[in-house]
Amino acid sequence: MLKQTADTLRLLAADMVEKANSGHPGLPMGMADCAAVLWTRFMLYNPEDPDWPGRDRFVLSGGHGSALLYGLLHLAGYNMPLDELKAFRQWGSRTPGHPECEIPGVETTTGPLGQGLGNAVGMAIAARISAEQWNNKKHALFGEHYVYCFCTDGDLMEGVSHEASSLAGHLGLGKLICFYDSNRITIDGNTDMTFSEDVGMRYRAYGWQVIGIDGHDQRQIEQAIRSAQKEKNRPSMIIAKTHIGYGSPNKQDSPAVHGAPLGAEELQATKRALGFPETESFYIPDAVRNEFSAYVKKMKKVYLKWQKDFSNWKKKDTAAYEAYRRQTEKELPAGLEEKLLQYRSGKANSTRAHSGYLLQELARQVSGLIGGSADLAASNLTMIKEGGRIERGHFSGRNIFYGIREFAMGAIMNGMALYGSGLIPYGGTFLVFSDYMRSSLRLAAIMKQQVIFVFTHDSIFVGEDGPTHQPVEQLMSLRLIPRLQVLRPADETETAQAWLAALRYKEGPSALVLTRQKCKDLHPDEKADPDFNRGAYILKDSPCKPGLIIAASGSELGISMEVAEKLEADGLAVRVLSVPSLEKFLRQENNYRERLIPPGNIPVFCVEAGQSLGWQALCKNPQYCFGLDHFGDSAPYEVLADKYGFTAEALYLRIRAWLKSPEE
Amino acid sequence: MLKQTADTLRLLAADMVEKANSGHPGLPMGMADCAAVLWTRFMLYNPEDPDWPGRDRFVLSGGHGSALLYGLLHLAGYNMPLDELKAFRQWGSRTPGHPECEIPGVETTTGPLGQGLGNAVGMAIAARISAEQWNNKKHALFGEHYVYCFCTDGDLMEGVSHEASSLAGHLGLGKLICFYDSNRITIDGNTDMTFSEDVGMRYRAYGWQVIGIDGHDQRQIEQAIRSAQKEKNRPSMIIAKTHIGYGSPNKQDSPAVHGAPLGAEELQATKRALGFPETESFYIPDAVRNEFSAYVKKMKKVYLKWQKDFSNWKKKDTAAYEAYRRQTEKELPAGLEEKLLQYRSGKANSTRAHSGYLLQELARQVSGLIGGSADLAASNLTMIKEGGRIERGHFSGRNIFYGIREFAMGAIMNGMALYGSGLIPYGGTFLVFSDYMRSSLRLAAIMKQQVIFVFTHDSIFVGEDGPTHQPVEQLMSLRLIPRLQVLRPADETETAQAWLAALRYKEGPSALVLTRQKCKDLHPDEKADPDFNRGAYILKDSPCKPGLIIAASGSELGISMEVAEKLEADGLAVRVLSVPSLEKFLRQENNYRERLIPPGNIPVFCVEAGQSLGWQALCKNPQYCFGLDHFGDSAPYEVLADKYGFTAEALYLRIRAWLKSPEE
Repeated sequence: MLKQTADTLRLLAADMVEKANSGHPGLPMGMADCAAVLWTRFMLYNPEDPDWPGRDRFVLSGGHGSALLYGLLHLAGYNMPLDELKAFRQWGSRTPGHPECEIPGVETTTGPLGQGLGNAVGMAIAARISAEQWNNKKHALFGEHYVYCFCTDGDLMEGVSHEASSLAGHLGLGKLICFYDSNRITIDGNTDMTFSEDVGMRYRAYGWQVIGIDGHDQRQIEQAIRSAQKEKNRPSMIIAKTHIGYGSPNKQDSPAVHGAPLGAEELQATKRALGFPETESFYIPDAVRNEFSAYVKKMKKVYLKWQKDFSNWKKKDTAAYEAYRRQTEKELPAGLEEKLLQYRSGKANSTRAHSGYLLQELARQVSGLIGGSADLAASNLTMIKEGGRIERGHFSGRNIFYGIREFAMGAIMNGMALYGSGLIPYGGTFLVFSDYMRSSLRLAAIMKQQVIFVFTHDSIFVGEDGPTHQPVEQLMSLRLIPRLQVLRPADETETAQAWLAALRYKEGPSALVLTRQKCKDLHPDEKADPDFNRGAYILKDSPCKPGLIIAASGSELGISMEVAEKLEADGLAVRVLSVPSLEKFLRQENNYRERLIPPGNIPVFCVEAGQSLGWQALCKNPQYCFGLDHFGDSAPYEVLADKYGFTAEALYLRIRAWLKSPEE
Repeated sequence: MLKQTADTLRLLAADMVEKANSGHPGLPMGMADCAAVLWTRFMLYNPEDPDWPGRDRFVLSGGHGSALLYGLLHLAGYNMPLDELKAFRQWGSRTPGHPECEIPGVETTTGPLGQGLGNAVGMAIAARISAEQWNNKKHALFGEHYVYCFCTDGDLMEGVSHEASSLAGHLGLGKLICFYDSNRITIDGNTDMTFSEDVGMRYRAYGWQVIGIDGHDQRQIEQAIRSAQKEKNRPSMIIAKTHIGYGSPNKQDSPAVHGAPLGAEELQATKRALGFPETESFYIPDAVRNEFSAYVKKMKKVYLKWQKDFSNWKKKDTAAYEAYRRQTEKELPAGLEEKLLQYRSGKANSTRAHSGYLLQELARQVSGLIGGSADLAASNLTMIKEGGRIERGHFSGRNIFYGIREFAMGAIMNGMALYGSGLIPYGGTFLVFSDYMRSSLRLAAIMKQQVIFVFTHDSIFVGEDGPTHQPVEQLMSLRLIPRLQVLRPADETETAQAWLAALRYKEGPSALVLTRQKCKDLHPDEKADPDFNRGAYILKDSPCKPGLIIAASGSELGISMEVAEKLEADGLAVRVLSVPSLEKFLRQENNYRERLIPPGNIPVFCVEAGQSLGWQALCKNPQYCFGLDHFGDSAPYEVLADKYGFTAEALYLRIRAWLKSPEE
């Protein structure tokens, strides 16, 4: 029976790819047996309620094998009609080239290799946190399920798999069960060309249980899953030796079957070989349909039992349930803004210090906040001091020590956010190392996940550490990622507003870009400007029509205010714009933008200690954008400010010169 | 004696950090013994000729330990006077916070963790290539040395270390000898918090020889290096158990000593404990100076022997030497441009196909070109067909199969370029995965290394693979990296020019951004415009003063030409600018820029299938930048072109509408 189920999955995938004339049949055909066993013998799910918290999670890290997942979702009875399979990789379909998390039953968007595995680690961590948060002696409703993940050669070659797996082993995530689709074939050919490491030994070195099986032997697959489930203190890696394109008489085991249709003839030969009707497409034997529906029915009982227990808990422990609901729905406490603005220290400091201070109050108010850093907690100031540390066997803490693993941190945070228990993960590193995890920011944005990236040491004013540690292009380059909210606050008030904006923005990730060095307090009256949330606002206006406008963000805003004073002493009417979020401001309606920058010929000077390309969207004249378009140097930051002209005096002289002879 | 040498290195580092009031004493103090043994017993170098091809390479992957390297360079007699050590981390000094490859004796710029190890792997590969290229039965002058690398916990936690080490094991790089400074301390505390993997087992899994030693026992260190040198077919990882901040009575083995000065009192206590004069700073015992100079003298004999053999070779095998000289000096053959433009197929195709075609001729002409891809050779079309494959034991090939390891590919290419034998490495992946290797692009730029990144599948026109595989923000974000030459050619002629520009640009890296889909041939007369090299040029001018200008790059240039035709049919005078390199054009003198875009009010429309932020530098009105500021979708690319308005007809209508009612 399982053989027939697996073959159905194989041929559905091959048919999908054939019809689309594009896609990857190799992985689905190779992993169909493991998938069939898992989805009809072990996995807990209810297609009618894809978001059921008690479900097992299934991550297809090699997202190019999407056709396998869509086939499973169809057979299992998710909202994935056969017509959608037939519209594989077409505009508007529910079956895009790579799985997307908006599709019911798809846990995460995968494709960029290695990150699915990182997401799975994040989900396994979130499950443990969930269990600690809500389970008690009377019930164990949450986080008791498994997280399954299918990995490919590509996933395991990528560096992020190392980072995520090393941490998973360290944390002893016993409920994480991975399958390694060891088919020894990648796009360029046999893995003998590039990949001869002993993956089993490597994973044992990480502290995982490693189980080797024939990935087409269903009894071995069952046995392996059972052994993996039994192991409570170590994640498991089931190394399944498979044949890519299994079942295709002439293309099995060849790179040709990885990412291209079988072709009409070979597809027919495959159907013949597997004993399926040669001329039918998208054929599903009744027995296979029945097999799935019988299994789903059985699982439904587990589901209903869970729902009953959940109702009981909800009724009996109303306070706990209410806390659970608030967190899961990410409901922010009433008056959070006022509380936070009052909590503010009111002292001039670095924005990272402000962030670290404000965070303590935020953590008290928002139970879903889970902090962390890639080994820079004391520099990023990301610790929740009353929060405790998450470690092997102890998941009641609020702080995760990711180690020097930026990319895995990103992928793991994405997994925690996707988990659906209302966790709002944030993680810190130096802004310059956002480069190491950039693809995970992009995926958070694609997936619309609320993840907060805390990037400190945000400019050349890092100082002595030198050019390798001084971001130049990173700030502007983050602004280019669609849907990522980039916030560069200038003082404590704005830092509070930035954190609030990040907490309120639930449809995507935010990046807080914070200074290493002290900044001036620019809101001595302690009044926050609500227009902060429009990306830019007038921090200081001229009494009459402005003769010039200075726009700046972060640490350069304080300098700009000094410059404005100097210019005003010369009799000029100066408006200063705070631009905490350039890309958000550019998306405002014309009306608002023109309120800040009136049409006409008022010169606008932009000042930011980073790449200037992009600021021309405000200032019209590229010459008026004063940025830093070269790498930095190793020296105390005050020296750099002086050498590069980022002092009030130098900037004042520069603007005076500009005003005298503008180039256009 | 060695003990005293090591202690001198320790205290030099501690003094440097103390004086700068900034820096990392922990690593230098912990690794001083290994460094002393290596630099006075084994390593081959000549401080008077830091670029000597026969030297051993030394890479300090944990670049934060720079004070150790500067101390070594001083003692060994490089151009690193004591005053420079005293100016540690100061403006203009030769002792920046992290080692920079411009400093004589510093092989590579390190700091961003894990990449130094990747560079070392690249150097070890380059050495083998060098040996294959120039050695023969009569002499073995090249690539016979070792590559030594010091790694930290942080290096080995980073994903790139996995990628690079797995490949190094696969290739059997026997002359690569790494030390793992296993001090169990990172910034956030003990590695027990984050890092419990069995590093030895992991490296054995990669196929390395693993040797465990006490990193403070000089006999064990010597023995380990000898064993590592004996092993010809596997890289070696010497796991040196060390104490961070060794010698500091109260701070050894604590995170406090990782990245902060010891403090006056503790520094004094350390000097006392090590038997050094308490009140002296930068103290160097005569015996230590003598030890180093005696060793350097001994090595000089080896050096002179090498130079003699080299002179003989040069005299006897003039043809080979001439080929060697040309490659090493990166001298391009005369008439290369003409040859390449003639070689051109003249057919319309994708720019990746043009690149793949042109490459065959380039490879014949430029012996230093070493190709590769991160498992996408057949998609990136990066293979040198006559070149053969580099594999274990065979390094005469021209193509490296990096596996699905983009980041390591970047770090390894940097290492090959740094090696100094005139290799010009290029490597391919999809543009969207430039995110995975972004930090290595940055380091290539910081180090001014000629490395060529071939990024294909450069827009949403990737099509069916969907948003995870469709770059949107990547193109503009590459332009933000200082010193990186970004080239997006539009047809075969421009692709040839782009390759030539990349080969001619020896002071930094280039990124070739190439399409998946076919593009129109825009140079039917086969004439290449030399102004291509100014970043933008007039592809098509209007007979009279232009009424509007369209600027575009890559695949959107062909569409823009069609749009121009339509507009001209309406009686408009249209100029079309090809902008293969926006950031290069912005750096041109005003004169040239105004030749293309005259001052005044001629509207400029910019068209690019990617993030538009940045194009405002050309067009003044953000509304006139037509880009793609959201993620894509999975569908055939023609459908996407239609849905997103990237067809000639849609663009024509849009421009007509703009011209009727410009928003400003």
